[in-house]
Amino acid sequence: MGLEAHLQHASLLKKVAESMKDLCKDVNFDCSEKGIEVQCMDSSHVALVSVLLRESAFAEFKCDRPVSLGMNIDSLTKILKMTGSDDRIADFDLKLMQIESEHMEIPEQHYKVVAKLPSSEFQKVCRDLKEFGETIQITGSKEGLKFMVQGDLGSGNVMLKPREGEKPEEKVSLTVHEPVTATFALRYLVNFAKAEKLCGSVELGLSPDAPLLVKYDLETADKGHMQFYLAPKIDE
Amino acid sequence: MGLEAHLQHASLLKKVAESMKDLCKDVNFDCSEKGIEVQCMDSSHVALVSVLLRESAFAEFKCDRPVSLGMNIDSLTKILKMTGSDDRIADFDLKLMQIESEHMEIPEQHYKVVAKLPSSEFQKVCRDLKEFGETIQITGSKEGLKFMVQGDLGSGNVMLKPREGEKPEEKVSLTVHEPVTATFALRYLVNFAKAEKLCGSVELGLSPDAPLLVKYDLETADKGHMQFYLAPKIDE
Amino acid sequence: MGLEAHLQHASLLKKVAESMKDLCKDVNFDCSEKGIEVQCMDSSHVALVSVLLRESAFAEFKCDRPVSLGMNIDSLTKILKMTGSDDRIADFDLKLMQIESEHMEIPEQHYKVVAKLPSSEFQKVCRDLKEFGETIQITGSKEGLKFMVQGDLGSGNVMLKPREGEKPEEKVSLTVHEPVTATFALRYLVNFAKAEKLCGSVELGLSPDAPLLVKYDLETADKGHMQFYLAPKIDE
Repeated sequence: MGLEAHLQHASLLKKVAESMKDLCKDVNFDCSEKGIEVQCMDSSHVALVSVLLRESAFAEFKCDRPVSLGMNIDSLTKILKMTGSDDRIADFDLKLMQIESEHMEIPEQHYKVVAKLPSSEFQKVCRDLKEFGETIQITGSKEGLKFMVQGDLGSGNVMLKPREGEKPEEKVSLTVHEPVTATFALRYLVNFAKAEKLCGSVELGLSPDAPLLVKYDLETADKGHMQFYLAPKIDE
Repeated sequence: MGLEAHLQHASLLKKVAESMKDLCKDVNFDCSEKGIEVQCMDSSHVALVSVLLRESAFAEFKCDRPVSLGMNIDSLTKILKMTGSDDRIADFDLKLMQIESEHMEIPEQHYKVVAKLPSSEFQKVCRDLKEFGETIQITGSKEGLKFMVQGDLGSGNVMLKPREGEKPEEKVSLTVHEPVTATFALRYLVNFAKAEKLCGSVELGLSPDAPLLVKYDLETADKGHMQFYLAPKIDE
Repeated sequence: MGLEAHLQHASLLKKVAESMKDLCKDVNFDCSEKGIEVQCMDSSHVALVSVLLRESAFAEFKCDRPVSLGMNIDSLTKILKMTGSDDRIADFDLKLMQIESEHMEIPEQHYKVVAKLPSSEFQKVCRDLKEFGETIQITGSKEGLKFMVQGDLGSGNVMLKPREGEKPEEKVSLTVHEPVTATFALRYLVNFAKAEKLCGSVELGLSPDAPLLVKYDLETADKGHMQFYLAPKIDE
């Protein structure tokens, strides 16, 4: 096989696989000299996951020629769960699969609103509001980032105002070219937000009538990133 | 609306709501200048819950005229679960309900036995003995407080003797005018005992053929209290 | 009754009972002046559990004449769960049962491979590999102890090499008279391995075509031990 890759710590790949497994089943790991890329759409074609593990994330990385490794994410997660101890040597041969897929080029978007917030806080807001309804309205403006849900038992909203913090992952910052309000299926955001283990902060990108971007660096930006895209709900 | 109330910490109301939710579904929060009162019977009419949140429990409390706010306890619990962080502003509008109910005046009882014990210990005894049977016999005497359960796998009893303690919540004390033995459905006590979060100690009041009182202060007595009453089981 | 036994700490008996309860239902506690012995086979007659609680494990131990106490392990576990606090006095009468059983003399085996390893690591290996298949192949050789599982999603193996450690429970050591490879139903090993609470290290004994021995001291060897035997799977 054309690939030989060695990760210093398996925990990074473990977190990536765990963050994908609610949305993807069988995926191709597309390996090239750049590193490893994974793209997959969820079964309802509403959400897209895009991962880039740069070769600099690996202690050693050699890829003679591009190769696609088809894997079942659940199986990969099971194998990676076994890593952790340096005291034992574990070898696994994972059966690979032939998966038909097309690699999409996702054009770089210029979002009208770009917000950075603590990833743990994004997760808490999504989980809390999920109790109130299925659809979330997100508004980004100079005032802050507002999440709103209306449901049978009433309506709830949470406002995150820009704030400083000692650590980058405590800050809330917004770049607003023009205020945007858009609505999304909340359950996808709850899934995305589980990736909070990857990075202390998360970036949201909002534009009118465009997919929402939810982006996590893989610990640091130079190792790569995990991006989720979610199509907006259009009012009929 | 005639009420404007502001709690320093939502945790107190959160604990009250959580302690009610196994027994009550829809309840009226009766607000007056005294504070907020809640009364409800469980669906089988064996247990009564009575809460008093005194106005002194609130940082600010204004109530122009008495008003009853009908709420679903589950919904209230969901909303209160969202509180906790000072970094974000969360607003919720909870739909109110019209609930028919009658406010009972519960006459002050002079119990033959009044026992004070650590609330965590009361919870552990109830949970442990629940494994052995459905009916618990409680005996209060100068010797101490004795809990007894008989079931298929044998019989068990736990004796708590009066004891001193450095903190009030470590003490076991009894005032016995006359020894009392009574039996109760244990599963209600298990429910009541979950309120241990409210206060480090719990007070039990026992009289022959009278309901058992299980009383928790809301942290301190001046903030109010939560009282449970449970009808005794009469031997046929 | 001919037995009066007093344990300094109930936790030891609690751990023994918990380690038995996946495999045994009703068992005889055979009491003699030596201490207490328990033997039981699992319902499929593939695994045997053998416990010896020496009289030295007890603070006080008096047994005038041999007696067998038939108990349900689940009930015993429920009672022992109630112990723990010194502040209260709990009495339980557990109904005893008449259980027909034969005490087998298990001949001392001279295993071709005897391995000692951290009991927590044995548990982790069993749990991890269980994800991959139902049958485990264990090979003991001078190289180390190798666990291998083959399943639908691929094959996995874990190698534990002999190593030193500061504490005895960190060491891996092997005595190999001749290399042995044998296969076993993995789910039993997962059950046995739950006994890791009993002792920091576990001893495995392997011989060709003989039952596997999995042995835990009860904290220290002089208090007794818990031994599991598992019949090998014979290739047809």
